[in-house]
Amino acid sequence: MLGLMQNHPLLISTLIDFAACNHADTEVVSRRVEGDIHRYTWADVQRRAKQVANGMDKFGLKAGERVGTLAWNGYRHLELYFGVSGSGRVLHTLNPRLVPEQVAWIVNHAEDQVMCFDMTFLPIIQAVHSQCKTVKHWVALCDAEQLPKDSGIPNLLSYEAWLAGQSSDYEWPVFDENTASSLCYTSGTTGHPKGVLYSHRSTVLHAYAAALPDVMNLSARDAVLPVVPMFHANAWGLPYAAAMVGCKLVFPGPAMDGKSIYELIEAEEVTFAAGVPTVWQMLLSHLGPNKLRFSKLTRTVIGGSAAPPAMITTFREDYGVDVLHAWGMTETSPLGSLSMLKQKQLAWPEAEQLKVRMKQGRSMFGVDMKLVDADGKDMPWGTGVAGDLLVRGPWVVAQYFKGDGGDPLVGGWFPTGDVATIDADGFMQITDRSKDVIKSGGEWISSIDVENIAMAHPAVAMAACIGMAHPKWDERPIVVVVKKPGQEVTRDELLAFYEGKVAKWQVPDDAVFVDAIPLGATGKMLKTRLREQLKDYKLPRL
Amino acid sequence: MLGLMQNHPLLISTLIDFAACNHADTEVVSRRVEGDIHRYTWADVQRRAKQVANGMDKFGLKAGERVGTLAWNGYRHLELYFGVSGSGRVLHTLNPRLVPEQVAWIVNHAEDQVMCFDMTFLPIIQAVHSQCKTVKHWVALCDAEQLPKDSGIPNLLSYEAWLAGQSSDYEWPVFDENTASSLCYTSGTTGHPKGVLYSHRSTVLHAYAAALPDVMNLSARDAVLPVVPMFHANAWGLPYAAAMVGCKLVFPGPAMDGKSIYELIEAEEVTFAAGVPTVWQMLLSHLGPNKLRFSKLTRTVIGGSAAPPAMITTFREDYGVDVLHAWGMTETSPLGSLSMLKQKQLAWPEAEQLKVRMKQGRSMFGVDMKLVDADGKDMPWGTGVAGDLLVRGPWVVAQYFKGDGGDPLVGGWFPTGDVATIDADGFMQITDRSKDVIKSGGEWISSIDVENIAMAHPAVAMAACIGMAHPKWDERPIVVVVKKPGQEVTRDELLAFYEGKVAKWQVPDDAVFVDAIPLGATGKMLKTRLREQLKDYKLPRL
Repeated sequence: MLGLMQNHPLLISTLIDFAACNHADTEVVSRRVEGDIHRYTWADVQRRAKQVANGMDKFGLKAGERVGTLAWNGYRHLELYFGVSGSGRVLHTLNPRLVPEQVAWIVNHAEDQVMCFDMTFLPIIQAVHSQCKTVKHWVALCDAEQLPKDSGIPNLLSYEAWLAGQSSDYEWPVFDENTASSLCYTSGTTGHPKGVLYSHRSTVLHAYAAALPDVMNLSARDAVLPVVPMFHANAWGLPYAAAMVGCKLVFPGPAMDGKSIYELIEAEEVTFAAGVPTVWQMLLSHLGPNKLRFSKLTRTVIGGSAAPPAMITTFREDYGVDVLHAWGMTETSPLGSLSMLKQKQLAWPEAEQLKVRMKQGRSMFGVDMKLVDADGKDMPWGTGVAGDLLVRGPWVVAQYFKGDGGDPLVGGWFPTGDVATIDADGFMQITDRSKDVIKSGGEWISSIDVENIAMAHPAVAMAACIGMAHPKWDERPIVVVVKKPGQEVTRDELLAFYEGKVAKWQVPDDAVFVDAIPLGATGKMLKTRLREQLKDYKLPRL
Repeated sequence: MLGLMQNHPLLISTLIDFAACNHADTEVVSRRVEGDIHRYTWADVQRRAKQVANGMDKFGLKAGERVGTLAWNGYRHLELYFGVSGSGRVLHTLNPRLVPEQVAWIVNHAEDQVMCFDMTFLPIIQAVHSQCKTVKHWVALCDAEQLPKDSGIPNLLSYEAWLAGQSSDYEWPVFDENTASSLCYTSGTTGHPKGVLYSHRSTVLHAYAAALPDVMNLSARDAVLPVVPMFHANAWGLPYAAAMVGCKLVFPGPAMDGKSIYELIEAEEVTFAAGVPTVWQMLLSHLGPNKLRFSKLTRTVIGGSAAPPAMITTFREDYGVDVLHAWGMTETSPLGSLSMLKQKQLAWPEAEQLKVRMKQGRSMFGVDMKLVDADGKDMPWGTGVAGDLLVRGPWVVAQYFKGDGGDPLVGGWFPTGDVATIDADGFMQITDRSKDVIKSGGEWISSIDVENIAMAHPAVAMAACIGMAHPKWDERPIVVVVKKPGQEVTRDELLAFYEGKVAKWQVPDDAVFVDAIPLGATGKMLKTRLREQLKDYKLPRL
């Protein structure tokens, strides 16, 4: 027997309609590529998103066809979020930090019909447009007068001129909430990128969860600054969650330096910001020497990679900003867990609380987590033993776009590729990537732990721990180090630095000094490439 | 094209599983019918809910069959919430304040197969059991030794003895999220009660919305006291939302007096409480003379009927407790709106803020509100003109159980029967019930406004405003008044009391003194019955 409640599909168009109706005069503020500050309201976002929808109709785009974007965080990108998905097409956000060949490969794989880009990325478009066979319309996110006369892009449109020709009268179509809404490719370090195809349902449910008090705690009293790019897993879902709660939204555009971010936070009375550790490091480096303080910012979500403990304490103790350490992946929409303390933990000593804050946190309703051992057997929580982390839930990937890569699930669960512990309170802590963990004599050694110790040495700028084949122990760790300019440390000094910090068998067998460690487009260390570089290396004690 | 995210139905069983897994040691505390305090954890709730599910299997109950409850707020009722719905049956909560004939009528209409009741309500069961043709199993929510030997109820079971025979090994069934989960009858003042049949989907979506920072703002740092009964629209969804966020849950049982509620709030460090104005009035009456203060309580939701402005200011100014004024109906699961201030309003003077806090508030994402005029035409917001309030959304009723009452919707919207204004910021304020509003010369006079003024007179204990037919004006208001014991006021004095408080045409034409105003089972004034009593009454100036 079915219930007798109303049937309303969960659609992205209802998010922007809600914001425009209930928070019509709440501002959306953007630092533009042009450098100036643009301000308008949720009512304006809706109006222009409807113009986008009408424009896509005129392009003759069918439901489900893809519209690519290469854009910073800004109001035009936001209009595309709602106008493209709301009208039944699929918004495909591309990472402009990829090399042009990768961009072209992804555009062709996605079969994008329209490509919208910030002028910053014109050189990428100029490099790839002739290889992008499916793209019929190129749209530069600028005014008509900013359009270069000789861009080399056939029929290049100015977004503003194009939009000006579209009516803002538009009735959003109503369809199955499981319809595809958006597409984002993972920046896989090996093999081709794989597309994660989100649905309207997964996006709206994720927005509800994201706004919860124990997750990002978003309300109409917040001014939210997503520093995390809108091309990275939908800026952690913030554009959708912001519309759901009707908060003020502040976009940094391309200006990610500490000074620009700080000025925007202060000028727009930002209460909540979200970004990766690198960006916050730039911000802290600007604040310290200039003796600056925040007037309204009270909390920041840090994810993408692990936040250094010092960053968490500095934000908290020096600036009164709570750091919410989070974990997620493109495949998880991306929110998987967030380290928000429970009631009983608030009574713990600060040092104990810090240990919890440093973990990647507990899952929210909608995400189930579990650990399995090397044989794939479920492991209990609260033992301190690490295992492979698997997740499931309505905003976790079931398969990749076009079925590429086969069935990624194991018994209905998505293997994250992360190795983690989960404590008795449900707080998860990433200890390593599965492919990076060193399996030594049946025990696992966390490459991240080995790296963090090396990074704590004053002479070390960057450190990567990789496993080397060993006849007796299967694998043994070595640490590959880039020294800080003008600083010195010897192999033996560095290995001695591990004494007392880890068990003897966890100390790396060797320290190798290099000029640089290869990094990927998103700033992550490319250990596969590092292993190739060291293919002739031999462990010292063999 | 469909998205490629995992398919997980939104089921009530996943709420209790989430709480038991992630908040296993968080407490659920109940004052029992027996008078003592019972404490256990979310892990225990799950274990015993699974025993309930196994017990229902052994009863031979099929999916979709109804299990009735006549019970206070307590842990056993909570176990039935999850065990009955989680296993695919329908939890039917009955209002024990109804007269036995109504209880019997509703049980027969719902075709309840099992009836679970607190011992407090044994007399009701004794009065009705022989008329309840469908009930096969009677379960008293008590230990075996508390079971009376000669109850007169055939095969009466003790819940505890019954549960002790059930395994806690149980795998929740997985089914369509639109499956019926629970049933609650409206306390209609005219005609037969009508059943609202909730679904798993509507319940889980409502829980997400209920927990949002701008709604009830529930987190794992809260201790939540639902004083609102679990037989009134699922205690405003709190049992489900509490499981979703893993907060501590505190149940008052039958002890609703000010002293008992205050002691429970203090002993259990309650941070959040929810109830109707009557209960809070009892609490405030206990606090004042005893000079008591709250140590942890910071906010309370008041709904069910309008909170008097004085109550809102007393809670805020004398006790530091934020009152969240809310509106909803059994037909809306029940959350429809809640008066949580926006950022810009926090800068307003306290008096202006109070005006906002006194409104029933803005809707949350998932509920759309609109006003229509007497011709059913949409009215704009922000004009101050009242209209009929209509709502829609995934947790709003589509039709009543068994299709009784025909199609209650108008163009897909549910007419609430309330008359309201909505300001430009989306804050709704109930001005009257549609059937109570007085239509005088084409203008509407709010019966509530007329009553509130009379109630402000020191000699008035209760006041009801009703419309009387008038040859020229269609209707004119009169006020029917019960005087406080030992207090005096004349007709002319009372009518003079309106001077300067409302426009002249809004002043009632007469004041009529009576000994009592008829009240319904939930304490609401029965104006239909009052009109019957006054059928021979004639307006003075005709």
